[in-house]
Amino acid sequence: MTTSAESAHALDALFRPASVAVVGVSTSPTSPGARTFANLVRHFDGEVFGVNPAEPEIEGRRLSASLTAIGEPPDLVVIATPAESVLDILTEAGELGVRAAILLSAGFAEAGEEGRRLQGLLAETARRHGMALIGPNSMGLISRPNSLFATFTNAVQETNAGGRVAVVGQSGGMAAIIYTICLAHGVGVDYLVALGNESATSLGEVVEWMMRPESGVDAVLGFVESLSGWDELAAAARMAAESQKVIAFCRAGRSQLGAAAAGSHIGAVAGDEKVLADLAAAGGIVEAATLDDLLDIAKARHVARPMRGRRVGVVTASGGAGSLFADLMTSAGLDLPELSPELQQKVFEVIPWFGSATNPVDTTAFIQSRPEEFCAVAGILAASGEVDAVMVFLGTLDPIAPRLVRSLTEIAARHPAVPVVVTWGGGSKRFKEDLWRAGVATFDDPDRAVQALVGLAPARRVAAATGPVSAPSPFLDPLPGELTGGRSTVTLNEHDVRGLLEAAGLPVPAGALAADADRAVAIAAEIPGEVVLKLIAPGLEHKSDIGGVVVGVSGADEVRRQAERLLALGREHGSAVDGVLVEQRAPAGIELVCGVRRDRVAGPVVVVGLGGVLTEIIGEMAVRAAPLTRGDALDALEQLFAGRLLHHHRGLGPAAAEAVADLLVRLGDIIAATDRLVELECNPVIVSEAGALICDGLAVVGGDPDDSSTGRFLQ
Amino acid sequence: MTTSAESAHALDALFRPASVAVVGVSTSPTSPGARTFANLVRHFDGEVFGVNPAEPEIEGRRLSASLTAIGEPPDLVVIATPAESVLDILTEAGELGVRAAILLSAGFAEAGEEGRRLQGLLAETARRHGMALIGPNSMGLISRPNSLFATFTNAVQETNAGGRVAVVGQSGGMAAIIYTICLAHGVGVDYLVALGNESATSLGEVVEWMMRPESGVDAVLGFVESLSGWDELAAAARMAAESQKVIAFCRAGRSQLGAAAAGSHIGAVAGDEKVLADLAAAGGIVEAATLDDLLDIAKARHVARPMRGRRVGVVTASGGAGSLFADLMTSAGLDLPELSPELQQKVFEVIPWFGSATNPVDTTAFIQSRPEEFCAVAGILAASGEVDAVMVFLGTLDPIAPRLVRSLTEIAARHPAVPVVVTWGGGSKRFKEDLWRAGVATFDDPDRAVQALVGLAPARRVAAATGPVSAPSPFLDPLPGELTGGRSTVTLNEHDVRGLLEAAGLPVPAGALAADADRAVAIAAEIPGEVVLKLIAPGLEHKSDIGGVVVGVSGADEVRRQAERLLALGREHGSAVDGVLVEQRAPAGIELVCGVRRDRVAGPVVVVGLGGVLTEIIGEMAVRAAPLTRGDALDALEQLFAGRLLHHHRGLGPAAAEAVADLLVRLGDIIAATDRLVELECNPVIVSEAGALICDGLAVVGGDPDDSSTGRFLQ
Repeated sequence: MTTSAESAHALDALFRPASVAVVGVSTSPTSPGARTFANLVRHFDGEVFGVNPAEPEIEGRRLSASLTAIGEPPDLVVIATPAESVLDILTEAGELGVRAAILLSAGFAEAGEEGRRLQGLLAETARRHGMALIGPNSMGLISRPNSLFATFTNAVQETNAGGRVAVVGQSGGMAAIIYTICLAHGVGVDYLVALGNESATSLGEVVEWMMRPESGVDAVLGFVESLSGWDELAAAARMAAESQKVIAFCRAGRSQLGAAAAGSHIGAVAGDEKVLADLAAAGGIVEAATLDDLLDIAKARHVARPMRGRRVGVVTASGGAGSLFADLMTSAGLDLPELSPELQQKVFEVIPWFGSATNPVDTTAFIQSRPEEFCAVAGILAASGEVDAVMVFLGTLDPIAPRLVRSLTEIAARHPAVPVVVTWGGGSKRFKEDLWRAGVATFDDPDRAVQALVGLAPARRVAAATGPVSAPSPFLDPLPGELTGGRSTVTLNEHDVRGLLEAAGLPVPAGALAADADRAVAIAAEIPGEVVLKLIAPGLEHKSDIGGVVVGVSGADEVRRQAERLLALGREHGSAVDGVLVEQRAPAGIELVCGVRRDRVAGPVVVVGLGGVLTEIIGEMAVRAAPLTRGDALDALEQLFAGRLLHHHRGLGPAAAEAVADLLVRLGDIIAATDRLVELECNPVIVSEAGALICDGLAVVGGDPDDSSTGRFLQ
Repeated sequence: MTTSAESAHALDALFRPASVAVVGVSTSPTSPGARTFANLVRHFDGEVFGVNPAEPEIEGRRLSASLTAIGEPPDLVVIATPAESVLDILTEAGELGVRAAILLSAGFAEAGEEGRRLQGLLAETARRHGMALIGPNSMGLISRPNSLFATFTNAVQETNAGGRVAVVGQSGGMAAIIYTICLAHGVGVDYLVALGNESATSLGEVVEWMMRPESGVDAVLGFVESLSGWDELAAAARMAAESQKVIAFCRAGRSQLGAAAAGSHIGAVAGDEKVLADLAAAGGIVEAATLDDLLDIAKARHVARPMRGRRVGVVTASGGAGSLFADLMTSAGLDLPELSPELQQKVFEVIPWFGSATNPVDTTAFIQSRPEEFCAVAGILAASGEVDAVMVFLGTLDPIAPRLVRSLTEIAARHPAVPVVVTWGGGSKRFKEDLWRAGVATFDDPDRAVQALVGLAPARRVAAATGPVSAPSPFLDPLPGELTGGRSTVTLNEHDVRGLLEAAGLPVPAGALAADADRAVAIAAEIPGEVVLKLIAPGLEHKSDIGGVVVGVSGADEVRRQAERLLALGREHGSAVDGVLVEQRAPAGIELVCGVRRDRVAGPVVVVGLGGVLTEIIGEMAVRAAPLTRGDALDALEQLFAGRLLHHHRGLGPAAAEAVADLLVRLGDIIAATDRLVELECNPVIVSEAGALICDGLAVVGGDPDDSSTGRFLQ
């Protein structure tokens, strides 16, 4: 495995090589190798070598017979030969000390089992030599600041003035389209990366490199099917949040995931991709629904500075437009703050008395006769410190358009830190183009302009970086030998889980295990109110299904009778019965599922959602990386119906959500502190006026943390 | 009140007058009156009169001193005088027999109490004379087929070739913008109507008129804040569905409604507007999120014929694009059907073996070398009868673009009944324009193209027209005198409601009212299993709050003890106790709320949603007009989490949803058949293997059906 620093170094060779060789420069000018070679020769400032063992020369340029024959190894090698020869050439490159390779060749994992095997060998070779490796089955890449056009896509023919935007795609075709659309809208793009089959260098590694200052990139636009390279992606999201940059992904395949998820017991966490998407959103990666959303973000970034917060002031001459903006911004997660009385007063010094100085500001139709004063309202908001951007809505106003353009240009120039974005529905194109040229992002449609603001706004909330965890250390480390019984992983029974939870200081109902009916009566006598009796026996995970749980038992006689029945039931089922767990009956309340598990990709995560029958129908779960802070936990709850429920349920105050948040933080600390815990499910956690109580639990412990196949719950 | 035929006749005068007069042609050429007069004079084929008592002539045209002075009354009068003079002029017009008026004057309901009063008098005057009345505070209207430009908006200056589109707005500014945007995109518009304050002629009346064949309109685009003129709007939606036309509304103010709704107990039915929006959607009115959605619908309608169903076949050369289309179409409610094996075979005769012939079809990159064959796949799908439209996705393909344009044009011409819509991400504008000219709707962005298909597709499901209802006639008509006790409306207690439900053949638990403990024991003895005891006393609506309900009682002793306790409790609270209701305890199951009420605007409606604590947190309710069919009821359930719950809950089969649907149909029949029922709430309805049982109910009966202030529940 290469380290992060080595990987970055290899990526430097990929995006900023001093020399490039293309292996497989065929004599057919339309072949990928020949087209890529021609693009490199035409644009690249450094040395470009062509390799073809059969042809000494092509279009007047000398070719080498092999990489070795070049003499000194190039920084980057592009391979466009038939699939079966690629491994040898890559190995040769690695041995020569080449730091980066792009494989245009197809016929690997996309072509079946043998191709998949071969691709594995390529990845292994790249890792062994510490090489960055894009592809196979890639369309190549463009690194414009370095005049590197190592690609055969038609997109390379577009004029590109460059800009602080990078386009990355797991579908090369879609990446090329996004690149082309940006250029067609006057947005220069510095990088285009078609990841191909992503055998070695992942989406995450590329995006992380783009977030480094030396890339010069402010915005990464991705067309993404799978969030690969998770750790680097998470790091990139943090870097973006810290440096006011933006990562926006149009993620295809959501509906299929959704459909697949609906079939599973706890839908929302069915696919790793769903887990990762949730974590990515929590980390501030913007979800774009379609290509236009990506384009709007790029366009806004192209001319405007990022916003400092998510507060937007809206100025319109139409109440209808204000109302529409309120809808669109609310659903995009932007804030429309109330304006202070002082600010409203200032606005009223300009607009007529029958206008409205609340946000959105409605200036009324006086814009027609006094366009400069209309624009002055935008200036007042921009100067107020009460908003982070100003949205101005204009209609069909051609007669006064030049005056509007002049005023808005002045105002935008005077307040560079507070972007002014204009929606101009109707009206002539040339006036809008004048505004763009003056650095004012201008859109035809309200929703397009709102998406642009989303691209300028800082992450809604970024999970806090987590320090070392002070977890209850004796929890599972070392794992009690008697629990695992020699196996690598084992599913603990409810009573053992109860013990572990108690030891970790987590809230469980009063109670204890009784070996016989006498002991059950004695335990019950110590517990106020009704009790619950549960049969505990090895391997008996679904005790309710055989009638192994009795709820609401009271009085010594009844406890004895039920305990005896349960013990007999256990024997009937042939189990070596451990006993009957006697527990205080939890007061009625809201049922949640809270859990932690070791995600195959994201590592330890905390999951929370509605419990009981609601798990099935609502199918919503929030996922956060563990360990997490109280703020993270409250944020996760807010995302859910569960959060609303905790706030609104009769008899529960704000303390209910706090209690759940505390529980989630504790659970997160536990899984972060021990790698012996594969999975821990608390279901239900009953939240009532008495707080949050874990009323049943299941744990998978021990074993290989990479093997999550034992987890039955939170996969 | 005018009849619908009279109203249509008056609207004919509004949109197709033979003569028009403008009252208030001021000497200032920029005033609304003078601008409107100038627009009419320039374009209108019929007679145009100007009225100004102070000026005999303006710009060489003679003016009259008053409407009366014109001699013969014009069909349409436009009034642009100061607010205080408008009523007299409108009255004069009415008495002269003028059939329609447009009030440009402002200063009415939007300006405070006195304005509101004055506006009421205007509306009253219009009604008295059977006049159509647009405004006050309107920007006027355009009726292009009749060369009528009765407006002062700048939009009138745009060149308009006309087209089967009408734009209607409750915000005149936004309507003008939508009009202008359509024209800027080459979509002609036949009508523009700025409704202004909507004192008399409503949104619904205008839209209904547009759906008549004589208007020539295929698509109505609305910017809407309130669904006024409900009956006409519902009729228009039915007309649209029957004649493959489309009504699409961009509805502003949704977030505020949402916020307001969240504060109420059963959020989703809190605002009439939410109820109407739900009914409008069920009736097939398309909800557009933003102006671009409206534009896309207009663009698609401009060139393509409507689809026969909602099935779309997708052809791409990029798996990524296919995946994105699947996402977007799924969330837009379009269907991507599986293709039949025969059809897949036909597709494979054209595309390479490593492509995919499932829907979306992935042809792979062979498009580059064989564009005609790529297009042939679209033709195969269009001819198959398995899809109602074909979406073709193209990328950056300028070298082969002319060949693609030629092929797609041919295919679209060969299959006019199955629209071919193209998404061309990247690529040169001129090729896309060639396609538009050839009648192939072409978009840059996948989501835009999907919205266009939404505008071409027939309504997802249109509530069936309902015939006469065969309701249980003795239900409430006449209302038993002893129930209302002389008051106009009365809230019935649970026992009375139970009686009414039983009489109507609706399912309630076995049970009866016991006046004393002996009788309670006797009743309980007849009921298998546990019983529930409920204290029944006049005015005691929240009996649970005082401990007036006991669940799960068994055995004669316990029944007696609890019955005695409840009767004592009732006496303690000073009530004249009716007795104790003894009912069989319903088996555990899913709790729903089912109800009917008389909506102030929409008339009798059926409401269904999740019950119990879920009502609060999920806050979702579906509303349908009553009476309704079984299909309508199942459709309403499908819209809800409740539907999913019924399908997925352990032990419940498809029969559960059917049982609830039956219940809803019965409830709908009841409220449709008697106007004595104001509201009937069944909460909870418990759905279990035993079917759907109404376990508690509350009814408001009698009184004035227009006065819903007594309803505590379903407002």
